[in-house]
Amino acid sequence: MDIQLNTENLNGFVKAEDYAAILPEVTKAHEHLENKTGQGLEFTGWLDLPERTTEAQLDEYIQLGEEVREHSDCVISIGIGGSYIGLRAALEFLISEQKIPVYYAGNNLSSGYLFHLLKELQDKRITVVVISKSGTTTEPALAFRIILKFMKEKYSADELKKRIICITNPVKGALRSMSKKEGYRTFPVNSDVGGRFSVLTPAGLVPLAMAGIDIRGLIQGAREAQKHCSVMDIQENIAYKYAITRYLLYKKGKVIEILATFYQRLSFVEEWWKQLFGESEGKDGKGIYPASVSFTTDLHSLGQFIQEGERTMFETFLIATESGYEMIIPGSDEDMDNFNCVAGQDLDYVNKRAYQATAMAHFEGGVPNMLITISRFDAKNLGQLFYFFEKAVAITGYLLEVNPFNQPGVEAYKTKMFQLLGRK
Amino acid sequence: MDIQLNTENLNGFVKAEDYAAILPEVTKAHEHLENKTGQGLEFTGWLDLPERTTEAQLDEYIQLGEEVREHSDCVISIGIGGSYIGLRAALEFLISEQKIPVYYAGNNLSSGYLFHLLKELQDKRITVVVISKSGTTTEPALAFRIILKFMKEKYSADELKKRIICITNPVKGALRSMSKKEGYRTFPVNSDVGGRFSVLTPAGLVPLAMAGIDIRGLIQGAREAQKHCSVMDIQENIAYKYAITRYLLYKKGKVIEILATFYQRLSFVEEWWKQLFGESEGKDGKGIYPASVSFTTDLHSLGQFIQEGERTMFETFLIATESGYEMIIPGSDEDMDNFNCVAGQDLDYVNKRAYQATAMAHFEGGVPNMLITISRFDAKNLGQLFYFFEKAVAITGYLLEVNPFNQPGVEAYKTKMFQLLGRK
Repeated sequence: MDIQLNTENLNGFVKAEDYAAILPEVTKAHEHLENKTGQGLEFTGWLDLPERTTEAQLDEYIQLGEEVREHSDCVISIGIGGSYIGLRAALEFLISEQKIPVYYAGNNLSSGYLFHLLKELQDKRITVVVISKSGTTTEPALAFRIILKFMKEKYSADELKKRIICITNPVKGALRSMSKKEGYRTFPVNSDVGGRFSVLTPAGLVPLAMAGIDIRGLIQGAREAQKHCSVMDIQENIAYKYAITRYLLYKKGKVIEILATFYQRLSFVEEWWKQLFGESEGKDGKGIYPASVSFTTDLHSLGQFIQEGERTMFETFLIATESGYEMIIPGSDEDMDNFNCVAGQDLDYVNKRAYQATAMAHFEGGVPNMLITISRFDAKNLGQLFYFFEKAVAITGYLLEVNPFNQPGVEAYKTKMFQLLGRK
Repeated sequence: MDIQLNTENLNGFVKAEDYAAILPEVTKAHEHLENKTGQGLEFTGWLDLPERTTEAQLDEYIQLGEEVREHSDCVISIGIGGSYIGLRAALEFLISEQKIPVYYAGNNLSSGYLFHLLKELQDKRITVVVISKSGTTTEPALAFRIILKFMKEKYSADELKKRIICITNPVKGALRSMSKKEGYRTFPVNSDVGGRFSVLTPAGLVPLAMAGIDIRGLIQGAREAQKHCSVMDIQENIAYKYAITRYLLYKKGKVIEILATFYQRLSFVEEWWKQLFGESEGKDGKGIYPASVSFTTDLHSLGQFIQEGERTMFETFLIATESGYEMIIPGSDEDMDNFNCVAGQDLDYVNKRAYQATAMAHFEGGVPNMLITISRFDAKNLGQLFYFFEKAVAITGYLLEVNPFNQPGVEAYKTKMFQLLGRK
């Protein structure tokens, strides 16, 4: 594995005997998952998805991507939740690979957002990809109505057949019917994979291929993680180690987990992680509240609270061995700011010392923390990271005795909203 | 006041007798603040700052802004914490007023971030504003070294005298010495106002004026809020009502406050709020953990947890009466998505129904919530909002019996980092 887990800043919070005591429950969770006998078994298709993804599928997506980049300057991706965050996490992580820009729509109900977006794209050559299982989710459905009108003003019906691509239910639903009627190209969503686990399905892979991302590397990384994370060994299997540690911390009153990164490129991995963990665990009055910070920015914001505030949280740091850029700090004759000690070093050298200092200081302040390290910002590492977190949350969910694969609470506000809107 | 506070979704969580019981403590907090007898009194200069800000000062900043826009296409603002987030919150809130773009630097230690920024700005005409009390804070100091080198490659020493502006300590410090030596124009920071309260000082006003923002309106709004929020009446004074309610909820075990917005333009108001509240309250093992969500995006992410997860939080919604944009939802002959019920409506109509439905659903799910409404996205509303939150956190801080105006915990990681870097 390129990614590593370090748990040395847990001393005194979680003990060897805590791990030993929970082993029977972990074994049960492991077996439920592997044998598909646990809660939510109908949505565990993500488990062996990396292995099941064929070269022919990847070739098809990559070829489509090449075609799109020939006739389009950019892509608008319409989707929300799992049909938005995973894609965006991947694109920001792999920003240096990206060949054409991807804009997002249908991920909010903001008039201003869409107004500025359409104004900016007025004169561009555009492909639209709509990602929605049903085609009736409010945000993407309304955005698609508005963007379809915009596209019809730019292009003929024939031209739209190659410029609108729908990723949706393969047999039924509004988007399926509309695609059939209008002749839009479609790709199927996987019926056994929930939205928050869908980044390695066509919902993620198709738009990523359009942007020119190395989706073969992504799947290769996920396959490596699938292999590594299937072993029932709570020391060796880092997904299990992470899952169990956070469960044990929760049982000791740590009700908030803060995912803390030191790279801008990881901001949307944090957002993706918050959906994955929050939606999988937060039910039946249980769950660790998933929060995130972007360091060192937020050391000058939430740093004070984490150091000395209410002792309700633990931290998980996410850093990269190689930053992928060079940015040398210049020397100064007068050295008025007293930073000639780092002149000639890369800025990332200071960033890494900031991480070390923060982890030590917060640990001493009463905040246990773990460290996840990726080797570099490439598709293989990202594939490993996605799968690692997916496997981990499944295990914590089973330990919490919730169904990690449903999201019944999401309906509550929708039902009320449709009443207010007079929607049948 | 243009901004309003609604507390109807608290029924059953906070009672009339809870407010009555706490009145003596609130009166004490109020008197400590007004008479400057409480903890941290040396940093309460923000209290009457709106009133003390003169027309001559505003004229000077506005004139500087006009000069900058004549010779520059954009501004790079170098700063972190209070010298970054408040400015950015204001600019995103007032995006439709902004005349030239402002880019941020010195707010992280990311090589890739600076690499992309300087690449993008290679051919632009640039003014740099450096905001740092001392000039020795790591992130802005290192960014300034790198950006100064970049600017020296573009401009002569004489040209730099009008293109580099420093907002710093008026008498001492590294940035003061450097400005004097090089002939850079300077503005003083207020010594009696902490960073997180500094958005209405030159640290915020000078770069806002460069961007073409209506800083007179901002100060006018703050003056209105200063007047409104100085009254010792816990029903009428909305800053007090908000402060006390959140304190009472905390005492009942609600350890997380989620600030929830429904507009993209409020995302950095959320970040500013997190610093203000987290850094002011999070000490001595106390404090409400400040988290944020951006709805409706995050209804498809953290919505499940808020509806049904561990009951540790309350919510504060922040919405706007007027969105400021028009984005009409088109009708559809087939109505396959079943949304013709909102055809012809503005997208913001649906957004507001989403708010109403969410507030009801979360309340019924066991999450008490409050609503802060702004009238519209203008400078006056923003000035009121900034002051409202500042006054509120001072009161909650005193109720918690902490010093709301210091941040001793921020030094812990810095000390360790300087050791690791070999910095004297």
